[in-house]
Amino acid sequence: MSKAILTLNSGSSSLKFAVFGFDATQNTPGVSGKVTGIGGAPEFSARGGDGEYLAKGILSNLNTTSSHEDIIAHLLTWLPQHLEGRPLIAIGHRVVHGGSFFAAPTLVTNDVLDKLKTLIPLAPLHQPHNLAAIRAVTKWHPEVPQIACFDTAFHRTQDRLASLFALPRSLSDEGIMRYGFHGLSYEYIASVLPQHLGSQADGRVIVAHLGNGASMCAMTNRQSVATSMGFTALDGLMMGSRCGTLDPGVVLYLMQSKGMTASQVEEMLYRQSGLLGVSGISNNMQVLQNSSDPHAREAIELYCFRAASILAGLVSAIGGLDALVFTAGTGENSALVRKLTCDRLAWMGLHLDAEANDKNQITLSSSQSTVAVLRLPTNEEAVVAEACRSFVTNNQIQDQKF
Amino acid sequence: MSKAILTLNSGSSSLKFAVFGFDATQNTPGVSGKVTGIGGAPEFSARGGDGEYLAKGILSNLNTTSSHEDIIAHLLTWLPQHLEGRPLIAIGHRVVHGGSFFAAPTLVTNDVLDKLKTLIPLAPLHQPHNLAAIRAVTKWHPEVPQIACFDTAFHRTQDRLASLFALPRSLSDEGIMRYGFHGLSYEYIASVLPQHLGSQADGRVIVAHLGNGASMCAMTNRQSVATSMGFTALDGLMMGSRCGTLDPGVVLYLMQSKGMTASQVEEMLYRQSGLLGVSGISNNMQVLQNSSDPHAREAIELYCFRAASILAGLVSAIGGLDALVFTAGTGENSALVRKLTCDRLAWMGLHLDAEANDKNQITLSSSQSTVAVLRLPTNEEAVVAEACRSFVTNNQIQDQKF
Repeated sequence: MSKAILTLNSGSSSLKFAVFGFDATQNTPGVSGKVTGIGGAPEFSARGGDGEYLAKGILSNLNTTSSHEDIIAHLLTWLPQHLEGRPLIAIGHRVVHGGSFFAAPTLVTNDVLDKLKTLIPLAPLHQPHNLAAIRAVTKWHPEVPQIACFDTAFHRTQDRLASLFALPRSLSDEGIMRYGFHGLSYEYIASVLPQHLGSQADGRVIVAHLGNGASMCAMTNRQSVATSMGFTALDGLMMGSRCGTLDPGVVLYLMQSKGMTASQVEEMLYRQSGLLGVSGISNNMQVLQNSSDPHAREAIELYCFRAASILAGLVSAIGGLDALVFTAGTGENSALVRKLTCDRLAWMGLHLDAEANDKNQITLSSSQSTVAVLRLPTNEEAVVAEACRSFVTNNQIQDQKF
Repeated sequence: MSKAILTLNSGSSSLKFAVFGFDATQNTPGVSGKVTGIGGAPEFSARGGDGEYLAKGILSNLNTTSSHEDIIAHLLTWLPQHLEGRPLIAIGHRVVHGGSFFAAPTLVTNDVLDKLKTLIPLAPLHQPHNLAAIRAVTKWHPEVPQIACFDTAFHRTQDRLASLFALPRSLSDEGIMRYGFHGLSYEYIASVLPQHLGSQADGRVIVAHLGNGASMCAMTNRQSVATSMGFTALDGLMMGSRCGTLDPGVVLYLMQSKGMTASQVEEMLYRQSGLLGVSGISNNMQVLQNSSDPHAREAIELYCFRAASILAGLVSAIGGLDALVFTAGTGENSALVRKLTCDRLAWMGLHLDAEANDKNQITLSSSQSTVAVLRLPTNEEAVVAEACRSFVTNNQIQDQKF
């Protein structure tokens, strides 16, 4: 009998899930959905493989005080009726930070959980919610193996120079290094690149994952060589509400001269900066593009000015550029962001085809461009599902029902 | 009768001075020298225009408790016998930070001093010593006009996008912006560029000021378009003992998880990081180059890896590169740093001539290079002296003796 795999991606106010077949080679889930509005009025929606809604609406039995435990209890109660009798043999979690502990997907144990807890200060916006989902599953279904898949793991191929800060050696030795994130997305893009680029896929490629969080990864041989995010998910590109690269002297100034506490600064840099901070309007690129407010336009232009600069800096780590891939929400859907960014990179031979870009096609570069520019949807869930399949296969876990 | 101008560059443990003729068009001073070891056993040395020593040795009347006032008193007592009767009609100071107050050299008044004092938190390593020298001169010779020349002023031509952090708009509005530094050095290099590059001097040029402090400036039309240092002199390139670009999340982590205070973090980022921190040996590039310790080599390679990355990022702000100029201590004297940095930029058509580089020649690029690479000594004192000449001429200050 066929078996099923569940993937979970748990954020501060949302939980996304997807069910994949164990034997399936395709990357599309059978059932998928999300709970949004956690902490407010939780809303549940789920669709089947053909896109039709299986459920949609406010969860009246849940409310503002509902925890991740309550949410996951709801999901795990609802789910079996839509599995067509297939046993759920593994649950895979997207976990933002694996620190220097984990370079590959890992079976969750108490020891693993303890290690992941120590990384919360490195990703305060994400890690606590990732771990809450793991604990909730453990509570309701301790018999199902859980696999943690890390956004940091893909970057462990990086050279030491790309990982080092110019800090005292003792700090590097204790793990204050540039880890990088969005590794599941980069792993997915790396896996599909040969379909689009042939042997050029193994050349010098930059993937721009531009979502609400945003980073870039420079690859050769489809392995990470350098990336824009550092020790935390705060560094690098300007994001929806995060500042990205910032003079560390500013942090000191905010505390020493403006009397802010570290947690006030943290709140400001993670939640009140980026597109939201500069525009004063929204962290949402689409909203800003639709606005006629000059501050909205300034935020978009700053986003692209900095994206071009960081991209050029990453090119120096791989000695030139053969291909650039845009992915994730903004990367896949904002022709304006792609245009404003690429316009600043014409000096390196990179040219968009305006029509292809406007139409969100797969190949966006013009015939004169020496750099191939692509737009590819990412699929982090597929990478998590595949990690679960590998784990189950390699460990010959027996079917477990619930 | 001819008149004289004195320039002062006051640091934490040293005071450099130079005397220029008022009518002179040449950029070399008549008398110049320095006091080193301030805070320890102060040592004074001075040379005449032909290079011979006029004074050299420990100042036995000064000691560890001697202040900038004592040091400047010594200098101003010693100096007149070497001025050949010329009156000192202006004293120019290098001042690191002019904030958003000052876009040009400025006559020092009490009001100006008050404004400059408010900028101390932005340059805690330099600004207090710059101001101490101004106050000392005021005490001993209040009748001599003092001109403050700012390291930030050259960058005031920058576009708003190059100056903005992705922080809440209210912070930008109150002046938390990217100011940039080393402006006196960039102004000097910009002034001599046409002698070496002809009309190409007005093209797309990056000047790499690599001293113990280090930054880069991207110019077009010999005006600053973008620069690597930000709000403080901590940002950008890796330096002798400063960290340069750093994930702001690291600063938060050091305080929240390691319990460091803001001033402990400040001390670490300004004085224990950079080449010193990574090598564990020295902040001095020459010392590291002479060391066989692999940590010394790693520090040098990280320095160049990051320099190449930041340079490429700046190229995106000026849309390509016609010329690169190395200047200041390391830029002028380290063939190894120039080589390791440029080797990472071959993809943009930049190639060194190995022999010219080894011999510290003026033109370092090979015939195949599409980017001209130069090595030019900087001369910040000449820029300060010229600012004093302009001020005196425009204000028709009468001769003042002391």
